[in-house]
Amino acid sequence: MLDRVSPTITSLLNARLQGHSLPAGLYTREDVFEADIDVFFRKHWICVGLECDVPEPGDATVIDIGASSLILLRDDDGAIRVMHNVCRHRGSRLLDAGTTIVSRLVCPYHQWTYELSGELVYAPHMGLDFDKECRSLKQIAFRSIGGLIYVCLSDEPPADINRLEEVMSKRLAPYEVGNAKVAHQCDVIEHGNWKLTLENNRECYHCSANHPELCVSFVDLDFGFDPESLSPEDKAQAEEHLALYAERTASWEREGYPSEAVEQLVDCATNFRTQRLIISGAGESQTPDATAACSKLLGTMTRKDLGDTHLWGHNSWKHFMGDHAVVSIVIPLSAGKTLVRTKWLVHKDAVEGIDYDLDKLTSVWLATTEQDADLVSRSQAGVADPAYVPGPYSPFSETNLEKFATWYVDRMRANGY
Amino acid sequence: MLDRVSPTITSLLNARLQGHSLPAGLYTREDVFEADIDVFFRKHWICVGLECDVPEPGDATVIDIGASSLILLRDDDGAIRVMHNVCRHRGSRLLDAGTTIVSRLVCPYHQWTYELSGELVYAPHMGLDFDKECRSLKQIAFRSIGGLIYVCLSDEPPADINRLEEVMSKRLAPYEVGNAKVAHQCDVIEHGNWKLTLENNRECYHCSANHPELCVSFVDLDFGFDPESLSPEDKAQAEEHLALYAERTASWEREGYPSEAVEQLVDCATNFRTQRLIISGAGESQTPDATAACSKLLGTMTRKDLGDTHLWGHNSWKHFMGDHAVVSIVIPLSAGKTLVRTKWLVHKDAVEGIDYDLDKLTSVWLATTEQDADLVSRSQAGVADPAYVPGPYSPFSETNLEKFATWYVDRMRANGY
Amino acid sequence: MLDRVSPTITSLLNARLQGHSLPAGLYTREDVFEADIDVFFRKHWICVGLECDVPEPGDATVIDIGASSLILLRDDDGAIRVMHNVCRHRGSRLLDAGTTIVSRLVCPYHQWTYELSGELVYAPHMGLDFDKECRSLKQIAFRSIGGLIYVCLSDEPPADINRLEEVMSKRLAPYEVGNAKVAHQCDVIEHGNWKLTLENNRECYHCSANHPELCVSFVDLDFGFDPESLSPEDKAQAEEHLALYAERTASWEREGYPSEAVEQLVDCATNFRTQRLIISGAGESQTPDATAACSKLLGTMTRKDLGDTHLWGHNSWKHFMGDHAVVSIVIPLSAGKTLVRTKWLVHKDAVEGIDYDLDKLTSVWLATTEQDADLVSRSQAGVADPAYVPGPYSPFSETNLEKFATWYVDRMRANGY
Repeated sequence: MLDRVSPTITSLLNARLQGHSLPAGLYTREDVFEADIDVFFRKHWICVGLECDVPEPGDATVIDIGASSLILLRDDDGAIRVMHNVCRHRGSRLLDAGTTIVSRLVCPYHQWTYELSGELVYAPHMGLDFDKECRSLKQIAFRSIGGLIYVCLSDEPPADINRLEEVMSKRLAPYEVGNAKVAHQCDVIEHGNWKLTLENNRECYHCSANHPELCVSFVDLDFGFDPESLSPEDKAQAEEHLALYAERTASWEREGYPSEAVEQLVDCATNFRTQRLIISGAGESQTPDATAACSKLLGTMTRKDLGDTHLWGHNSWKHFMGDHAVVSIVIPLSAGKTLVRTKWLVHKDAVEGIDYDLDKLTSVWLATTEQDADLVSRSQAGVADPAYVPGPYSPFSETNLEKFATWYVDRMRANGY
Repeated sequence: MLDRVSPTITSLLNARLQGHSLPAGLYTREDVFEADIDVFFRKHWICVGLECDVPEPGDATVIDIGASSLILLRDDDGAIRVMHNVCRHRGSRLLDAGTTIVSRLVCPYHQWTYELSGELVYAPHMGLDFDKECRSLKQIAFRSIGGLIYVCLSDEPPADINRLEEVMSKRLAPYEVGNAKVAHQCDVIEHGNWKLTLENNRECYHCSANHPELCVSFVDLDFGFDPESLSPEDKAQAEEHLALYAERTASWEREGYPSEAVEQLVDCATNFRTQRLIISGAGESQTPDATAACSKLLGTMTRKDLGDTHLWGHNSWKHFMGDHAVVSIVIPLSAGKTLVRTKWLVHKDAVEGIDYDLDKLTSVWLATTEQDADLVSRSQAGVADPAYVPGPYSPFSETNLEKFATWYVDRMRANGY
Repeated sequence: MLDRVSPTITSLLNARLQGHSLPAGLYTREDVFEADIDVFFRKHWICVGLECDVPEPGDATVIDIGASSLILLRDDDGAIRVMHNVCRHRGSRLLDAGTTIVSRLVCPYHQWTYELSGELVYAPHMGLDFDKECRSLKQIAFRSIGGLIYVCLSDEPPADINRLEEVMSKRLAPYEVGNAKVAHQCDVIEHGNWKLTLENNRECYHCSANHPELCVSFVDLDFGFDPESLSPEDKAQAEEHLALYAERTASWEREGYPSEAVEQLVDCATNFRTQRLIISGAGESQTPDATAACSKLLGTMTRKDLGDTHLWGHNSWKHFMGDHAVVSIVIPLSAGKTLVRTKWLVHKDAVEGIDYDLDKLTSVWLATTEQDADLVSRSQAGVADPAYVPGPYSPFSETNLEKFATWYVDRMRANGY
């Protein structure tokens, strides 16, 4: 028993100052981490994978979220299902980590056997009277939005995911994400709190100095800047870009491609923001020279000049371009450790070495991800330092961090903290 | 300080449902682990080793149980002693892990020197008036039952170990375990709670699918089955085995070898069960072909056809056969980590390469132990999953788990939880 | 929530028995560790480095103390400064571990830029109205005493460091530590509590049996002995040494070299003890043969026969000899892990291979440090054992441990425990 008592989580939330980063304890304490997992990763919708992670009936993959283990599979009827990876007998894991092909789910411990629907069909040694019906695998609420799998581990999933579905279904349709191919996947463990991982992703203030590869195709001006501090030259360039962005957006919209920014960031459970961004330079794709990495375009896309349909929200960020897409999913591991899982998608029939070069496809975001991991670990060490005091967000390029912090505090309070 | 309070250990115990595995927290929480160590590994008798671990005067071996370190040694008079491995000066460890030969116990820090009896005989720099008599090494209550060393770290060891002694002294006598030789020892760390390790050992429901090597000599029917779910063929085979078992047991008993099952599993502090089992196939030993691995039989044994004197209880399980014995001891390391130490015993004069082949001797239980470690780690991951709910034990082949869970809850309550 | 409550830190302090080592929990509990860090490593003066760690303007080195990271640097005016390694924006670490050369401190995250004085001079994206003046890097109170850097992380540094400064400034002057060269540095992680590391350093009761290399030049008699337990021969030798020590001390004092023991060990915040010790054997230095390791003497020293100016206190111990000095700094890492950082100093112009041989210079304390690490880890394992009870300190050679334990308990109480 400590002689001195740490502040409650509630008082940490109350200590948060508008316009400033969060109080240290919210980034560092294990009890806050436990609360975060419960509130944000069990009671909110989170993105965990893609329909195309399990393209064929019998394909199954395991996704671990904290102590929870989920099986994402495609059943015999070709339907997606998400279930808990926990045998209803004595709790053994059914499937190991990774992806596999199954006809039924057989627990290796005592051979309890489930259909791909989750129904228990065989339970030896339990007697003829044993009621198998109440022992199906527990199902998990999920929603496939344009091929992206969102799950909610609670019994009362927030309803406002509808807005995300409404906005994104049309935008994502031509990319046919659910029918794409995962050309590459990469797991990076960042040594920082999941909220620092997300804050880092929500601003491009750090881009120019830290992401040379990304900045070939990415325009950090789209993420805010301080007009008064720019040189006349830079100011002219910024104004030129904004004009171009407005013109291009209007023209894309006229051609039937929804492009305007849409956001639901505060006063909501399910936060997201989407916007069609201009790709700079060659203008096609987030590659070292901004030209397309894959000669077969995604889904029904016929043009490479439709920019980058950027979508971020809660635990993920995504970029959909003509030739490929990049999807990053964030899974907290502890107060100071976070998994960032990134997947690169191409057309399902695209062949490596013929239609695309894997290095060209992946190198920009591989580099960016490593750079971000370094920045997040520097931040985590700093906020854990007793000398840290929450600092001011830029009113130009960190406004989405302010919204994130507000949302975070609101959602904690809405869940009883 | 958490805003929300975890359930107390008492309420976890109260939540246990008859016929079902334990509530998750009892397998996963570190505070429960601390309580378990205190209740089950300090206030109950535990098996820690063998007389033959220290065959000669001056032989000493160190055994760590949680934060406790014990010295098991044979003193100058040939008597076994068990003492705490803690110098009475400033607490330094006297002996390192492992086995050694000593004439006196000299603390490497400041040379305080103890006789093998534990008596302090030299304490430099402490002055002529220093009272050495009250500074002997602290002794630990122990009992050697047929050469197996049981200790209790509390000052009030449960008296009902007498029943274990009474039953086993006669059964173990011909094997002369105390005078055997440890031919091999193997430590495996299972990534699971010690109670899952024991539950796994208390049933053979999982054997046929997981232990092909063991099932050559081991008959899982001896551990319960559901008669109604067997095919007519399997049912006939089961009945045949039960008849053979009854006949063999009666015949062994007539010949003077106690063989009937004896158990003390609930309503007691010291739990155990023993039974002489039939070895199947060649009928001699738990080896790949069920023939004896060692040509010199144990102790005064003259027959290889006396089956397997099986003994299990609390933190250990053992098999005594004509040619060799296998002893496994369980030592919890944390809520989710458990050491399983296995020793293979042969006649003290048996010579490797002449009387026995080490691989034949050890391969069955080496394989079984690895397989069990995998099953226990799957179980631990599963019970830690928020989706876990305690599941039903088989009324045929998991009755001893029901008894174990009952005993566990009872003993926790008896100790104030 | 535990069903049973651990004793408070206050009750552990109250349980401490005069003349005995501390109650176990004070060495092993993480909550005590957190309190220790706060009380002893934030509210007391601690030694963290040397002026000569950063000899030139722009030299900077990072020192981590718990979760705190400090930048020790020499600014453009040649003055020493100590600042927190935490950007005032969102808290990122400015410098990585290790030593570097900088012209300004630029945060790698968003390029906030500070002068070497700590002043914020550039903060992009923050707007023209942004008040940079209140965003300087946080300064840390420090004192350079004879070139040794002491810091205090609290706003109210104890005043009684003045006595240390008063005593040591004159004694250290001729060694010119601030202007020396760090010839070698070595970090060892001891698997024990920082208080065991210090207790181990405060007595030489363990030296003769554990430090053969050190005992060539070191006289353990200087650290207390039990006269009645010595053989007549040893007694004569001890008396001879004490006479020599008295004579040598008087003669050194007469020649203008302060040598008498001075101590401030209890009833104070800043504890220390200093004394000029005789070097035995060849009499020059703590080397394998007790002759000087470096032919260029330190600072303005002209003699090799001025013994060993020994200084210890709180988290460090030091030896200043004619040819070199050895400085050890203790930084706790967790309840059971402690960093011991040792630096060997020679004259700034001394050249390796010409003026000194690195192996001869470092071998004695490298060996001693390893031996001590082993002893401390044995102690930690022992005090963590439930069988540990605080044992008696030697009234002859462990009197400084008694004073340390008294000081520790007093200072905890003075800080509210």
